[in-house]
Amino acid sequence: MKEIAAEMAQRPDRGEVATYIPELARVDAKSFGLVVIGAEGHVAAGGDSETLFSIQSISKVFTLTLALGRAGNRLWRRVGREPSGSPFNSIVQLERERGIPRNPFINAGAIAVTDLILSGHRPREALGDILRFMQFVADDPSIMIDEAVAASEQRTGFRNIALANYMKSFDVLENPVDFTLGVYFHHCAIAMSCRQLAMAGRFLAHLGRNPSTGLSVVQPESARRINAIMLMCGHYDGSGEFAYRVGLPGKSGVGGGVLAIAPGKASIAVWSPGLDANGNSHLGRVALELLTKRMGWSIFGA
Amino acid sequence: MKEIAAEMAQRPDRGEVATYIPELARVDAKSFGLVVIGAEGHVAAGGDSETLFSIQSISKVFTLTLALGRAGNRLWRRVGREPSGSPFNSIVQLERERGIPRNPFINAGAIAVTDLILSGHRPREALGDILRFMQFVADDPSIMIDEAVAASEQRTGFRNIALANYMKSFDVLENPVDFTLGVYFHHCAIAMSCRQLAMAGRFLAHLGRNPSTGLSVVQPESARRINAIMLMCGHYDGSGEFAYRVGLPGKSGVGGGVLAIAPGKASIAVWSPGLDANGNSHLGRVALELLTKRMGWSIFGA
Amino acid sequence: MKEIAAEMAQRPDRGEVATYIPELARVDAKSFGLVVIGAEGHVAAGGDSETLFSIQSISKVFTLTLALGRAGNRLWRRVGREPSGSPFNSIVQLERERGIPRNPFINAGAIAVTDLILSGHRPREALGDILRFMQFVADDPSIMIDEAVAASEQRTGFRNIALANYMKSFDVLENPVDFTLGVYFHHCAIAMSCRQLAMAGRFLAHLGRNPSTGLSVVQPESARRINAIMLMCGHYDGSGEFAYRVGLPGKSGVGGGVLAIAPGKASIAVWSPGLDANGNSHLGRVALELLTKRMGWSIFGA
Amino acid sequence: MKEIAAEMAQRPDRGEVATYIPELARVDAKSFGLVVIGAEGHVAAGGDSETLFSIQSISKVFTLTLALGRAGNRLWRRVGREPSGSPFNSIVQLERERGIPRNPFINAGAIAVTDLILSGHRPREALGDILRFMQFVADDPSIMIDEAVAASEQRTGFRNIALANYMKSFDVLENPVDFTLGVYFHHCAIAMSCRQLAMAGRFLAHLGRNPSTGLSVVQPESARRINAIMLMCGHYDGSGEFAYRVGLPGKSGVGGGVLAIAPGKASIAVWSPGLDANGNSHLGRVALELLTKRMGWSIFGA
Repeated sequence: MKEIAAEMAQRPDRGEVATYIPELARVDAKSFGLVVIGAEGHVAAGGDSETLFSIQSISKVFTLTLALGRAGNRLWRRVGREPSGSPFNSIVQLERERGIPRNPFINAGAIAVTDLILSGHRPREALGDILRFMQFVADDPSIMIDEAVAASEQRTGFRNIALANYMKSFDVLENPVDFTLGVYFHHCAIAMSCRQLAMAGRFLAHLGRNPSTGLSVVQPESARRINAIMLMCGHYDGSGEFAYRVGLPGKSGVGGGVLAIAPGKASIAVWSPGLDANGNSHLGRVALELLTKRMGWSIFGA
Repeated sequence: MKEIAAEMAQRPDRGEVATYIPELARVDAKSFGLVVIGAEGHVAAGGDSETLFSIQSISKVFTLTLALGRAGNRLWRRVGREPSGSPFNSIVQLERERGIPRNPFINAGAIAVTDLILSGHRPREALGDILRFMQFVADDPSIMIDEAVAASEQRTGFRNIALANYMKSFDVLENPVDFTLGVYFHHCAIAMSCRQLAMAGRFLAHLGRNPSTGLSVVQPESARRINAIMLMCGHYDGSGEFAYRVGLPGKSGVGGGVLAIAPGKASIAVWSPGLDANGNSHLGRVALELLTKRMGWSIFGA
Repeated sequence: MKEIAAEMAQRPDRGEVATYIPELARVDAKSFGLVVIGAEGHVAAGGDSETLFSIQSISKVFTLTLALGRAGNRLWRRVGREPSGSPFNSIVQLERERGIPRNPFINAGAIAVTDLILSGHRPREALGDILRFMQFVADDPSIMIDEAVAASEQRTGFRNIALANYMKSFDVLENPVDFTLGVYFHHCAIAMSCRQLAMAGRFLAHLGRNPSTGLSVVQPESARRINAIMLMCGHYDGSGEFAYRVGLPGKSGVGGGVLAIAPGKASIAVWSPGLDANGNSHLGRVALELLTKRMGWSIFGA
Repeated sequence: MKEIAAEMAQRPDRGEVATYIPELARVDAKSFGLVVIGAEGHVAAGGDSETLFSIQSISKVFTLTLALGRAGNRLWRRVGREPSGSPFNSIVQLERERGIPRNPFINAGAIAVTDLILSGHRPREALGDILRFMQFVADDPSIMIDEAVAASEQRTGFRNIALANYMKSFDVLENPVDFTLGVYFHHCAIAMSCRQLAMAGRFLAHLGRNPSTGLSVVQPESARRINAIMLMCGHYDGSGEFAYRVGLPGKSGVGGGVLAIAPGKASIAVWSPGLDANGNSHLGRVALELLTKRMGWSIFGA
């Protein structure tokens, strides 16, 4: 890990840090962290592995997990599970398919999933549930929401407000749009380190159970299926590229983080804030490509 | 395999057999075949495992393999590797992306790949190369093209003619459109049995080598990457569904066949001519879902 | 006019009354009104010519006029003047063209125009300006906003909220989205009779001047251009049909009203609440077709 | 006319001459011609009014007229009459609307109209009919097809071949695609001067009759409707702009010609080969804007 972190530190190609809110814009573009946690719980870390960053869309993996646990297959009435073939914030597909988002990992889909978690609860409760779930899977009660990030997102998130109201016009959302978006903007603003994130992903690498605590999070079938959706849709319109180069299920966030899963082998978190044209961490992908190749972890043959 | 074949024989839900050409329309909707070939070369077969059927789009896996061998990464200048988010014969994406198809497994992409194989050769030679390559990977010189199917496709393939001319208008095709389409229609008309198809797929399950003959077809890296593209794009706009339910790289054809790969473990061919709304074999998918579950072969965790 | 009103009273094909808000849904589907005001100010009326109805999108003709007066050609930086080729509330075109609506008569375009009128004012002032302008052009200070309609629109207008936030995400709107939409929903809720509406349209028929009062509303050039935009875009995706059958510039509203202009000859208002598939008054169009034919008023040759 | 021609000769902004075939590319960019024929048959000419140019899409006005005469309203089962909101050669709309082109003046629509004229005839006969019709309406038997242009179009017209095959795949075309396209490419290659073109348009300005010869070409109703379609769709995605600035029904061709109709007053032909971004003659539009303003000919008020 240290080796890869050192290599990454020297790469001149770093992509562009997200600038749409000041909290993301002021992150140091040179940051790089990598943590791999193996089946036995051994932690290998490199770079800024303890620095907190905004997990942004990576939270969608955990809200999907939570929503599947609550609603089961009813969830799929509100959101599909196909790649979208379009950018993360596209609204075109929603018009063609009457407000049903293509998958839970594009913005519209994650908003629909959030709305389902919210149903029957107050926003504050729903958000508490999500945060406690994250603390539970990461086995770390210190994980928090960065309120400044949440407030900035809420102030400038016109595109997401548009997506949510558009779905609402098709009755795909049940709750008041403001409530749903409030919860959405806040869970995207959870701050975690690579170490915490890799911990949180362990149940996906091990058939739904955290192998250290022994606690079951979801059924094995669900863990497999969440991994499948991560592979197909986890990097927006760069998902094919990620599958082709890295060969692992993964989910990126605009804060520069990526969670990747080597089923049966490891949970991996990487962070480098510079983004490529599709809004995915550039060096994050490069580092994961190196890592899978060296470890022979590709799910497509080893 | 016999058990699964027997279960499938009793299922009332069979989908609709393709009817756009008479040769496909007259196939018995009740046909079902399944062949699994393990790492050691053991063949397990059930149902109509020796009946020839039209492999149609499954040929695209092999033309992609051949083209990658010839052109290497140059191939990716002409075709992308992202899921399309649209039906197999959509032309909308081509307009938006200036004639570059999204991936090698939608029709437009496979036509672009065929054009690349054709370059520098006469249509007859290129077609001979493709057929001999198929015979080589399947280790079976008896594999042939069904000329009646090819002729029917050519007579009625207006949509494919449109796609090809559209790409030609953006200079994405090098050869005369008629030549490229002639080769394309013919390689889609290759007839194979489940046994032959499962044999042909073995190099993809075993890092590019046929473990029985020991002959290398492609580099390990290429085999992994072809598997990745199969998973992401192999079932058109039902690729997410296939990944979610089956959890294996696979490629379907409108003739009702599916080739699926369990990396390191098995090459699998299934055939049932009834299709679902996305044009993929309905019982083929159901049978593969049963099979992966029983065998614990999902690439997303076992 | 009475003759045409009588004919219309017997037509069985009436279209469907808009039902998305209760205030529109409870209008009598059998209502029909028609008023024609000639160059000399002679008023010919038939049917329910004095009944107030919700003018809805017809207000967009007057906000465009007001905005052109204030901003001149600067207006065209925020909105185009081409037919959209899509339904009145489509968001697809906005994604492709970075938030710039195609024309001032689709919802997005009218919201952008409203935002321009609002700039530098408070919502209440801007709304007062619009209402006073309407009273001025109609020479009738009794024209009012139906607050119940405005409140219903505001409560259920998720699609419009989506459109506005979407444009805001591209910086096409200057003001807070809620303010702009508040003004928009209210001016769409102006209630007028056919007589009042035909009066209000007179300046468009007579080169920008009201021939009775002699007061100039806009330059002749502007009147011609507003008529041109009405012809091209006034009936959403049924504008071609209206031009083909009626041959006059016209603007429809979902309340069932239509304002049509016979340049140099007459200002015409018709009202029948049943709508066709494009959201335009069905009998309104039929009546106007009869009228233009009998009077020889088509702008395409007489 | 001479005055306007002189003004145009000095304008530095001339647009770009079409270069997709050599025959168009080698036309002198400085050419400019203008001919106006009034109701009494008086001809006013300026500039290169006798030079032949390729009328290209302007031929679509005449094939529409011919097809309406033959098929009447049956024509509208194959083609719509709404503006397309997209470029002249877009295929996107065809996918959404199952092969039915939006209007007779985009390429796909004109190909569908040509197919209808062809039905029941051989290509050579159909082409003869079209050419004779053009000679008849222009009262000039010397009008010919430029075979070199037709041959070039046929050799390079991949986009049109795509459009035609695409429609064929939806059964919108009846005849073999090659036959229909052969006739299409040839009628677009008719060569005419401004004088001939203005002569040919006279029936549209005068309710379907040529006022000099007294011969009736179409019913008054049809002439009005063709004018309406010209206004709505005659300049592709620049039709709104043309209506806004010029205020007359008009049809442009990629050869730089425009036919414009002042109903009841004049038939106008202008030619300047430099095109704007929408593929319409740039100075042609400018000259027509000047002309209508000076003559007070706008159909939107004078």
